[in-house]
Amino acid sequence: MQRPVAWILSIGNELLIGRIVNTNASWLGEKLTLDGFLVRRIITVPDSLEDIAEEVRRAAERARVVITTGGLGPTYDDMTLQGVARAFGLKLVLNPEAKKMVDKFYSSRGLPLTEERLKMAYLPEGSKPIPNPVGAAPGCLLEVGDTLVVSLPGVPSEMKSMFEQYVEPVIKKIAPPLYTVECSLIIKGVPESGIAPYLKTIAKKNPAAYIKSHPKGHELEKPVLDIRVLLSLPDKEQALSTARTIIGEIRSKASTLGGTIEREYCVIKS
Amino acid sequence: MQRPVAWILSIGNELLIGRIVNTNASWLGEKLTLDGFLVRRIITVPDSLEDIAEEVRRAAERARVVITTGGLGPTYDDMTLQGVARAFGLKLVLNPEAKKMVDKFYSSRGLPLTEERLKMAYLPEGSKPIPNPVGAAPGCLLEVGDTLVVSLPGVPSEMKSMFEQYVEPVIKKIAPPLYTVECSLIIKGVPESGIAPYLKTIAKKNPAAYIKSHPKGHELEKPVLDIRVLLSLPDKEQALSTARTIIGEIRSKASTLGGTIEREYCVIKS
Repeated sequence: MQRPVAWILSIGNELLIGRIVNTNASWLGEKLTLDGFLVRRIITVPDSLEDIAEEVRRAAERARVVITTGGLGPTYDDMTLQGVARAFGLKLVLNPEAKKMVDKFYSSRGLPLTEERLKMAYLPEGSKPIPNPVGAAPGCLLEVGDTLVVSLPGVPSEMKSMFEQYVEPVIKKIAPPLYTVECSLIIKGVPESGIAPYLKTIAKKNPAAYIKSHPKGHELEKPVLDIRVLLSLPDKEQALSTARTIIGEIRSKASTLGGTIEREYCVIKS
Repeated sequence: MQRPVAWILSIGNELLIGRIVNTNASWLGEKLTLDGFLVRRIITVPDSLEDIAEEVRRAAERARVVITTGGLGPTYDDMTLQGVARAFGLKLVLNPEAKKMVDKFYSSRGLPLTEERLKMAYLPEGSKPIPNPVGAAPGCLLEVGDTLVVSLPGVPSEMKSMFEQYVEPVIKKIAPPLYTVECSLIIKGVPESGIAPYLKTIAKKNPAAYIKSHPKGHELEKPVLDIRVLLSLPDKEQALSTARTIIGEIRSKASTLGGTIEREYCVIKS
């Protein structure tokens, strides 16, 4: 089974003018890849109804799953769902379930449900709201033809928790089953800057793997590194053996550089 | 005069799978905005000839300036210029000037000019090469109809120095003349985390301004912050007065929080 295609649309002028770096898109890109999707576009779109509708429509023609982030808030320039609705010729309608969510968020804080706030409960007809455990704006799930359009807020903590809690369980059913292996290797005595070029080379040889080093001690005096290897493959044994080969290469490079291995483990998740 | 439109195309699978964060695009987004352009899209495109050609063609139909980053290197998956050529039905031809650049880079390091390396000197017909003061791959400037397509390497240090040295002088002639004001405010006694929410609010009120804080001392024991305000406007006086108003708001917030102002200045560049 081929990996289904995913497109990511990041909505917001602040991204286009470079005021913030698009870390949401790279986080989603990694998640979707590990969940079995082929991410083919990340598109940053201005806060403009026409542009959002254009890009949502194009994405839906090309991708099985479209994830949008940003533009769900209460202000006039938050117009993602209006753009999604326009893309498919749908109306925005007050969703009773979404209204409850928004109402609960504000009433629990002793705040009134103003018109601006209620705006967040209007979803394209036929959508399902996604609860927001962190902030006020619900997300939105909409199936159009063979495409699932998922709209999430732009605040990273809200986006991430909603994606993990509510979106991943749904989209994992769309992708072929993959086995994700995560390994950790604790190395003492090698500074991150010393091993970084080798990790880059190893990563380049293994395009399916994510290799990340997390410094845990003092970089030069008492360097301790937690090196994580993460990869997803359809075959369980192959996923495990590939991860172990990578870990083996890192281990041998670390000892050449004078490091000692403190701990090593691999876990497999399906 | 209206701001001309710019699109940014970031090319590379490593961005789509989230292995790296697209800091190039935000750096360019800020530069282009301050240079007088309206950045309307940032599109991350896979290392695929068809996809690159499709997005370059679409960008050229919509933007006055298109900047691509990545995919200029010597390996088989570096195919940006091939994609640019295909977008406009042009041939890739060995550019004598680009050949000299690549040759000089390798011969000064005692390395031979292999076929893979020579590949970097093939540009779409009618292009001009952009010298690369840091690495091997030249960039490429191509005028097609009313659009300027600029291709730069993906390595941030190469991309940035080429953009500043060779691209900005060219594209600044396309944009209306703007005055850029940069102000700096050194504040003692306020930790960055204390003033951050206020800076965010002030930035939101002033969409044309970039407000950044750089901690210079110890965050909690001896906090020293260098707060920079950067903005570009067509009117010199207005640029200066807007920047001073913002600086004034930050200064008064800082003293409310118990901080003292160590230094303050604004410079104006055209």
